[in-house]
Amino acid sequence: MTKPLTELLGIQYPIIQGGMARISDSTLVSAVSEAGGFGVLTSVGYTKEELRQEIRRVKSLTERPFGVNLMLQQDNIPELVEVTLTEKVTAVTTGAGSPKAFAAELQVAGIKVIPVVSQVTHAVKMANLGVDAIIAEGYEAGGHVGLTATLPLIQQLQKEVELPIIAAGGIGSGEAILAMEALGAIGVQIGTLFLTAEECALGQRYKQALIDADDVATALTGLSWGLPVRNIANELIQDCLREEFAGVNYEAIRPMLYESYVRAVEQDDVERGSVMTGQIAGIIDRIQPAATIIEALMASYHEAKERI
Amino acid sequence: MTKPLTELLGIQYPIIQGGMARISDSTLVSAVSEAGGFGVLTSVGYTKEELRQEIRRVKSLTERPFGVNLMLQQDNIPELVEVTLTEKVTAVTTGAGSPKAFAAELQVAGIKVIPVVSQVTHAVKMANLGVDAIIAEGYEAGGHVGLTATLPLIQQLQKEVELPIIAAGGIGSGEAILAMEALGAIGVQIGTLFLTAEECALGQRYKQALIDADDVATALTGLSWGLPVRNIANELIQDCLREEFAGVNYEAIRPMLYESYVRAVEQDDVERGSVMTGQIAGIIDRIQPAATIIEALMASYHEAKERI
Repeated sequence: MTKPLTELLGIQYPIIQGGMARISDSTLVSAVSEAGGFGVLTSVGYTKEELRQEIRRVKSLTERPFGVNLMLQQDNIPELVEVTLTEKVTAVTTGAGSPKAFAAELQVAGIKVIPVVSQVTHAVKMANLGVDAIIAEGYEAGGHVGLTATLPLIQQLQKEVELPIIAAGGIGSGEAILAMEALGAIGVQIGTLFLTAEECALGQRYKQALIDADDVATALTGLSWGLPVRNIANELIQDCLREEFAGVNYEAIRPMLYESYVRAVEQDDVERGSVMTGQIAGIIDRIQPAATIIEALMASYHEAKERI
Repeated sequence: MTKPLTELLGIQYPIIQGGMARISDSTLVSAVSEAGGFGVLTSVGYTKEELRQEIRRVKSLTERPFGVNLMLQQDNIPELVEVTLTEKVTAVTTGAGSPKAFAAELQVAGIKVIPVVSQVTHAVKMANLGVDAIIAEGYEAGGHVGLTATLPLIQQLQKEVELPIIAAGGIGSGEAILAMEALGAIGVQIGTLFLTAEECALGQRYKQALIDADDVATALTGLSWGLPVRNIANELIQDCLREEFAGVNYEAIRPMLYESYVRAVEQDDVERGSVMTGQIAGIIDRIQPAATIIEALMASYHEAKERI
């Protein structure tokens, strides 16, 4: 039998908070971990020292396990890995590349390595690398995504890869956590629901855009250049899609998107900013503390389990 | 409590076979129904008399319940409805429009009306119409699809609509049937798996294309003109996507796609035909009788239920 996620990470509930670039800071992460989930710090935009401070701040706010997300396209990855190693967080999640260069070193130090994958071939590579688990993230997730939806992705991974699987993309209820357990996943990663956590540093307009969103509020840009990203289909995204489908190439569209994510996250610009979110945003109807989000998920998980 | 699908349709297992245009004929339908699922006849391309013959042929092959799929864009829908009424099948599934014009008449005759929907607003309209249930079909399904994946779609429907929900799109295992039950669905509709049933009239090359498919083998065309269709990303589809992303409009691309579905289904052309299938095709590795497919699904469903 595969170890449950709670045992793998020493946490209370099988819920990892997605490491959201420039969003999941020490305040959100400590709130999630303190509530029994697994908080994951972003490292995007941080210097080595800034990441160290954030890690230490989480430690000052909770004694519970937490992790760091390493976006592998960052220039200062070696330094960020070094801080993660010396500060000994519980686990590292990785995206946008392979953690091959440093996975073994982290694992020797007792840090779990858990890459995010979106297709079977990538998962096979990660299994060969000997990582501790994978986060299988479906098309319905927010931000940079693959094109296979969570449900068919997990079923095909279960058949092809011998690795503990954590399901991500489209998880917005305790029923969905149970559903992923039915598919054989050891737990889930949740991003979108935590965007509207009280402890999340995003602005009021960004959060309101998620509360206002329905099931078809998001769209993917970048399909034509092979780098799909999911955002709320606001003015910026509709302009971008119009150009993309008119055959304008990436280089020409790029200036329009330049710093659009920073505009959304730091300036709370929900018209001309990239308001990244998953398709599950339509289920959100209020801002709540992270602990309340987690409690509600686990309550409905147990109710669904009784029913099944 | 909502009635289980087995009770609603008087069947043994909570599995509807998707009504696949020009594919699900009396041979496949009777095999599925005889095996305890709910077979659904296509009506696409049939005259009134042809549909009547197909219905009667199913009745001669099995005494078990089955249904008819009505694609509402067909010109002869009134005639097809009339045959369905006089032949008294158990249920009608509908796609590509609203069954408003004839739903009440069918229901008065004791025939269940079950529309396929892909977003919440459509489901709300169907609830107001008083249909018996809805099939909620996610992005990962084959053929004409919506853009919301099954997992977030079902969760949002559960919250917004009071109707029995049958989950479709991405269902390729008993574990997935249990997962949909965890989400509150009363059962599932499966299309892709039945494409490789022994009793399915498709050619060997079409079936082999599905066996060869992996998790990323399909692609959506028609995103730019608002009518997404999922096919194997063969030569035809790659040509189509190249033009679509170059800004060529639908009218200009249309000749390339003309009769491409018929080419695939009737001439077994897997290079220049539309080989429609869902993303779950990657899980298929053999041709089997429909009964074996259903038995394997239910065996793994029960195993997963023991584990949960």
